[in-house]
Amino acid sequence: VTAVNATIAIWDDYESTLKTITRYLKWFDEFEELIRPVKTVDDILSAKLENRTGIIFGWQNAAPIGNDLSRLRLFHELGVRIIQITYNERNLLGNGCYERVDDGLSRFGLAAVKEMNRLGILMDLSHVGDRTTMDTIENSDGPVAITHANARSQIDHPRNKTDEAIRLLAERGGVIGANAFPMFFERGFDTDLEEYLDAIDYLVQMVGPDHVAIGTDFCMEQPRSFFEWLFMSQGKIPATDIPYTPEPYQHLRGFADPSDWVKVAEGLLNRNYSESDTKKVLGENWLSLFAQVWSK
Amino acid sequence: VTAVNATIAIWDDYESTLKTITRYLKWFDEFEELIRPVKTVDDILSAKLENRTGIIFGWQNAAPIGNDLSRLRLFHELGVRIIQITYNERNLLGNGCYERVDDGLSRFGLAAVKEMNRLGILMDLSHVGDRTTMDTIENSDGPVAITHANARSQIDHPRNKTDEAIRLLAERGGVIGANAFPMFFERGFDTDLEEYLDAIDYLVQMVGPDHVAIGTDFCMEQPRSFFEWLFMSQGKIPATDIPYTPEPYQHLRGFADPSDWVKVAEGLLNRNYSESDTKKVLGENWLSLFAQVWSK
Repeated sequence: VTAVNATIAIWDDYESTLKTITRYLKWFDEFEELIRPVKTVDDILSAKLENRTGIIFGWQNAAPIGNDLSRLRLFHELGVRIIQITYNERNLLGNGCYERVDDGLSRFGLAAVKEMNRLGILMDLSHVGDRTTMDTIENSDGPVAITHANARSQIDHPRNKTDEAIRLLAERGGVIGANAFPMFFERGFDTDLEEYLDAIDYLVQMVGPDHVAIGTDFCMEQPRSFFEWLFMSQGKIPATDIPYTPEPYQHLRGFADPSDWVKVAEGLLNRNYSESDTKKVLGENWLSLFAQVWSK
Repeated sequence: VTAVNATIAIWDDYESTLKTITRYLKWFDEFEELIRPVKTVDDILSAKLENRTGIIFGWQNAAPIGNDLSRLRLFHELGVRIIQITYNERNLLGNGCYERVDDGLSRFGLAAVKEMNRLGILMDLSHVGDRTTMDTIENSDGPVAITHANARSQIDHPRNKTDEAIRLLAERGGVIGANAFPMFFERGFDTDLEEYLDAIDYLVQMVGPDHVAIGTDFCMEQPRSFFEWLFMSQGKIPATDIPYTPEPYQHLRGFADPSDWVKVAEGLLNRNYSESDTKKVLGENWLSLFAQVWSK
C-alpha cells in the first residue's frame, strides 16, 4: 500500500476536524520516515519510491464545514481531497443511507457540489442515501466515487448501492471500490476472500474493469466502543440496535489486513483477469480518477 | 403588548446564539424598568402588572444546537421557550419551506421533537416544509404552534400553510398566528388592515376561535441588508432572487407597529366577533398554549 484515504471526520465538527488535522501535521513531522502527506497523484507516486505510506485526508461526512461553504477552500488548502457527501444520516447537504427517507441534495448541497467541482475535491457516495447519490452524480461536473460499497442487487443491504447508481457513476467516469467490510456480506464475519472476489467480479461484470477498485474499509484493532459511536445518531444519540461485531474485531477471512492485498491480486489472476485489468482494479483506476479530479 | 417572542436565532450557530443570550442578559439588568425575561406564563402576567415588556427567547431555526441534542437542556435553562423546527431550508431536524424538496423529520429531528416535549419547549412550524410540518404535528406528544403564517388555500405562497396542516394542528390543540407580513398577501406592500382581518377570519372559519391568534412578524426599521441576509442560503450564500422590500421598510397599512393592535381589536368587534372571541384571538389563545406546553 502506498497511500491510504485516512478518515479524519465522521461525526466531527469544524473545530474538532481542525484539531485532528493539526495532530496529523505533527505526525507528518514526527514520523517523517514512515508517512507523508498526499495532495496530488505525484505525492502518491513519490510515496512509493520513498517507501513511505501516503496519507490522503478524507472525510466520511461533509459536516465539518457546518453551514459555511467557504470552509471548503480552507480544508482543501489543508489537504482534504476526498469528501463523502453525508454519513448514514442527514447533514446540511443531503441524506445518508440510514435516514428515515431521502429527498436528495438540498440547496446548500447543490452549491457544495459545485464548489467541490471547482476546488478539485473528490466526492464520495458510499454511505449516502439513494436519491442524494443520484442527485450528486447528476449534478457534478466531473466524475465522482463510491469508495467502499458493493452492489445491492448482489447483496441486499442499505449500505450497498443500486445498479442505477453504479451504472450512472461509471458512465460519468467514476469508480466504485468493492467493500471488504464483513457486515455487508450475507455470511457476515464468516465471509472469506472468495466471496470478496465474487463481489469485485460482480461489479466488473456490470460496469467493466475501468470503473471498479478496492475499498477495504479496514477497521482493525478497533474496540466495540468505536462501532457503537459509528452507529449513534449524529454521533451523539445512542443507537437502539447496533449490529454485532466480534471483539477483538476481525476482518474478512483471507483479507484481514493490508498484507493480504497480494492474495487479492492472485485471486483475480486465478479468475483469468489479465495482468492489465488486475492492475487497474488494484490501484490504477483510483490513480486515474484522482488525477482527473484533483488536477482541476 | 406585554410580551414578545424575540427571535434570537435564525442563521446563528451555537456560539453566536450563546453570545446573543449573554447580551440580552446584560440588557435585562441594564433596562430593568422596561423589559423582563419570560420563562413562564406567570412572568407574562407579571410583565403586564409591572408595565414592562416580557421577552420570550425564541428561535426561528433549531440549528444552534448543532448535532448535540443535550444542548436543548442548556438553552431551556437559559430561557429558550419557542423553537421553530427549521428556517426556510434544511437543518439536521427537517426541511424548510423553500427547500428543493421536503422529506420530513430526520432521525435526529424525531429525537429533538421528543426532547422538546420533555423539556416543555413550544415548537413552531411557520417556515417549515409541508412534510416536516405534518411529521412534527403527528409525532409531538403535545400541541404545537404556527406562530406566523396564513392559509395557502386563501393566499397561495410557500410560506403559508396547507389546510391539512392547519386542521391537524388545531385538532391537536395547537394555535396558528395569522401573519401580518405584507409579502404573504396578494397585494404585497399595498395590503391594508381589512385584508389582514380577512386572513384572521379565514382561519377562524376553518378551525374556530380557540386556535387562531396574531403573529405580527413586525420587521420595523430593518434595512434592506437584513432581508438580504434572511434570504441567503444558510445565511451565507447570497440569494439570486430576493423579493422586493421597500426602503425604509413599511408594514401593513393600518397595522404598521405595535400601537395599532387596538385597531385589530376594533376590526374584529366590527365584524361581530364577541368580546370573548376577540380576546382569545388577541392573546388568550397564546397564553393557554404557553401554559399547557411550558408547564410540562
